[in-house]
Amino acid sequence: MERLRKLNLYDTLVTYGESGHYPYHMPGHKRKKNGDILSDIFQIDITEIDGFDNLHQAEGLIRQAQERAAELYGAEESFFLINGSTCGVISAILTVTDKQDTVLIARNCHKSVYHAAFLQELHLRYLYPEQITEYGISDAIAPEAVEAALERYPECKAVVITSPTYEGVVSDIRRIGEIVHKKGKILIVDEAHGAHFGLAESMPENAVRQGADLVIHSLHKTLPSMTQTALLHVRGSRIDRMKLRRYLAVFQSSSPSYVLMASMDACLAFLEKNALSSFAKLQENHRDFIQKTKNCCHIQIGEMKTLQGKNCHLAAWDICKLVISVKGTSMSGQALYDMLKDDFNLQMEMAADTYALAVMTIADEKSDWQRLADALLQIDGKIERAEIERRNPKEDGMPPTEMTIAQALSAFYERTPESRSEVLVEQAQGRVIADFINLYPPGIPILVPGETVTEEEICQIRRNLDLGLHVQGVSEKGTVWVL
Amino acid sequence: MERLRKLNLYDTLVTYGESGHYPYHMPGHKRKKNGDILSDIFQIDITEIDGFDNLHQAEGLIRQAQERAAELYGAEESFFLINGSTCGVISAILTVTDKQDTVLIARNCHKSVYHAAFLQELHLRYLYPEQITEYGISDAIAPEAVEAALERYPECKAVVITSPTYEGVVSDIRRIGEIVHKKGKILIVDEAHGAHFGLAESMPENAVRQGADLVIHSLHKTLPSMTQTALLHVRGSRIDRMKLRRYLAVFQSSSPSYVLMASMDACLAFLEKNALSSFAKLQENHRDFIQKTKNCCHIQIGEMKTLQGKNCHLAAWDICKLVISVKGTSMSGQALYDMLKDDFNLQMEMAADTYALAVMTIADEKSDWQRLADALLQIDGKIERAEIERRNPKEDGMPPTEMTIAQALSAFYERTPESRSEVLVEQAQGRVIADFINLYPPGIPILVPGETVTEEEICQIRRNLDLGLHVQGVSEKGTVWVL
Repeated sequence: MERLRKLNLYDTLVTYGESGHYPYHMPGHKRKKNGDILSDIFQIDITEIDGFDNLHQAEGLIRQAQERAAELYGAEESFFLINGSTCGVISAILTVTDKQDTVLIARNCHKSVYHAAFLQELHLRYLYPEQITEYGISDAIAPEAVEAALERYPECKAVVITSPTYEGVVSDIRRIGEIVHKKGKILIVDEAHGAHFGLAESMPENAVRQGADLVIHSLHKTLPSMTQTALLHVRGSRIDRMKLRRYLAVFQSSSPSYVLMASMDACLAFLEKNALSSFAKLQENHRDFIQKTKNCCHIQIGEMKTLQGKNCHLAAWDICKLVISVKGTSMSGQALYDMLKDDFNLQMEMAADTYALAVMTIADEKSDWQRLADALLQIDGKIERAEIERRNPKEDGMPPTEMTIAQALSAFYERTPESRSEVLVEQAQGRVIADFINLYPPGIPILVPGETVTEEEICQIRRNLDLGLHVQGVSEKGTVWVL
Repeated sequence: MERLRKLNLYDTLVTYGESGHYPYHMPGHKRKKNGDILSDIFQIDITEIDGFDNLHQAEGLIRQAQERAAELYGAEESFFLINGSTCGVISAILTVTDKQDTVLIARNCHKSVYHAAFLQELHLRYLYPEQITEYGISDAIAPEAVEAALERYPECKAVVITSPTYEGVVSDIRRIGEIVHKKGKILIVDEAHGAHFGLAESMPENAVRQGADLVIHSLHKTLPSMTQTALLHVRGSRIDRMKLRRYLAVFQSSSPSYVLMASMDACLAFLEKNALSSFAKLQENHRDFIQKTKNCCHIQIGEMKTLQGKNCHLAAWDICKLVISVKGTSMSGQALYDMLKDDFNLQMEMAADTYALAVMTIADEKSDWQRLADALLQIDGKIERAEIERRNPKEDGMPPTEMTIAQALSAFYERTPESRSEVLVEQAQGRVIADFINLYPPGIPILVPGETVTEEEICQIRRNLDLGLHVQGVSEKGTVWVL
């Protein structure tokens, strides 16, 4: 017991908070207080007593707060989510489908989309985003690709797109929406990383105003709200609101936290008042940062204009996501990430093969931007150009689907734990996988249950593990579960 | 916009926190700080950065914290839940069933049990708790009733019991567990209201140590932890742990709040050190309170020993739940509740037909107990005995089930919103209900989708509405949805 007590989570968090590491990652408040907002959480952590409404049947204060959210984002109706975007994504998909329906999704969707497919026994058809080879990241979904897929798979009831991506790549939601609606389908946009969109002219327009039927926003990712807070927006007549409310009640605690709800409320109140000035400041800081880091010889910051004339589909690139690329150098993304953390106390959001990712928000001050730029300039001096051509994290040739996620997991769980098959990644070729294999972060699957493992995925998993990245679904022994 | 801003949720919560209303309700911390614990939540509100583990694949700090929870409660494995007991109950039930299985549940289970039945298309068989007529509350589940039901419905895969109930009535889990296991079934105990059980000798033993396979604890209900925090405990070899982990990943945010997790961690650390002394103090305060309120002529506090010799099944009655009964007097439970709130600034947890319910925890000081006792003595002087025989909230004669919840909701959602049938409660007799009709709090169903409405339920709904209680599923116009 004494040994365990030393590893106390709460104490370790407090110690870390005081350590001076600066967060270039979520949540968007960057661990900074905003005046005395939420300075005494116990005082406001209540239950559904008189006068304080009920999230699951909002008629008073919470309803008014949700109406303010709807007004801010241009939605007809918005819902506070206290179980993250996760519950919003799942509720959205279950609302627009029946059991065993078919849905068209971008392959780089978040795992919650795949979890919805599991629960609803969905058949999935995929949109495979192309690669932006300059940075080794996924491109946006091309409207033409959506059109072609819906012609090929007319049985799809809905389309699910993640925009922006984890790296900030924005799809053309307006055109995609027009195509989807012309075909009589429903468009769900997982805009979890774009809750700040549409709040100022310098930001891309949000998916709600561009015509998506259901849009999910993580408030904590890029805005100053507590982790696990999110919004679900509805617009138009295609969505069965009663059914949606039912699922939201299922996937969220019947004891929702008033602290989380208050955090959302305070965040929205702040934005109503300060969004324009805050984002103007952010844009200026970003411009200065880009200017300054232009002096790097090797490190490159991903920018929309470097892609002009290239064959890319992105409609915009969110300036809140800094893809700090070391492509074509002797350094890996993980090494850059580690150096920033260990030598400069700067904690990035993620490391990938050829880049590190920083999340910037309105909570970052000029000095926080400068600190990162200075560190990058120093590191840049130590890097050498190299012809090590790192492969993109995702190539062509997708794993064949043998059955739905629900069928695969059901077949797997039917067996007793003792009789289930676990094999080394290297020996999994040709086997049907029985688990989600996700690169985390961001939690996007390399393989989903029911797919046959090919050489390509084995290489990809091995590469990620060798780079020190975290691959969920692979055990410490290097094994995976198969049927 | 200006109008809405005035109804700001956060500001209203702060104002209320400063208003002097004392909470005789959840959460268990009673809005009191414990030193400087969680005094700066932004500082500790992080994401899954290096060294801080991942709730969905816990290997470090979070795993250690969960192991401490398991040790404290006598479980083999415990899981932190950041989406409340709700996600624990649903994950537990989906883990032990396949689609369209049959499950035996206590009728007074929380709505999350019914939501699990909806998702898994379960057939439900019911255990109907009898009434403790002295107080108009549900009795415990009799072990003999479980045995008889399992003989009548051998197709049941699992048994789900709520113990303690919202009012603190505890079932004999040890004997029920023996019966369930002898029949080769699984026992899930929703012990959401009993997270303090087994932490001191003066408290009833918890369900984990009494042999239940899966036990769910709300940490916030009766212990000093933030709202929406809970634990799921597993013991024994009957539970497929892999399947359980899968569902926990589905029903919880992929961005779990470190503030909620830290709150659980700090709560457990506090209990490890202070449980014995804290509960000894609570027991003493309770004894004094009972002594003092014995001077009431009309008001009665529910107590185990007042039921001795009566034909009741309860194994214990939690002293943290005060059933303040005005049965057989001129006053209703709602009137008592209102008087305590309006005249004394004392906010109760709930009002029912013939009683008000107070939740007492280790965060209550001697003076908080005294304040309630003093108020009750004053109110008691104004009450008159009356022969108004109020009916129990739940009588015999249960509504007939026509189809599963999933079938009913599916049939309902198949229709367009315009063609769905909404009728006045009074005209619903003989119709199949298409929505959950719950008395809230505590969120226990009067009717579940797929049941035929009888005169009994109509009377019950009407009575509750007339008493000013909140009945979920009934619109402001007094209508309900039917097939």
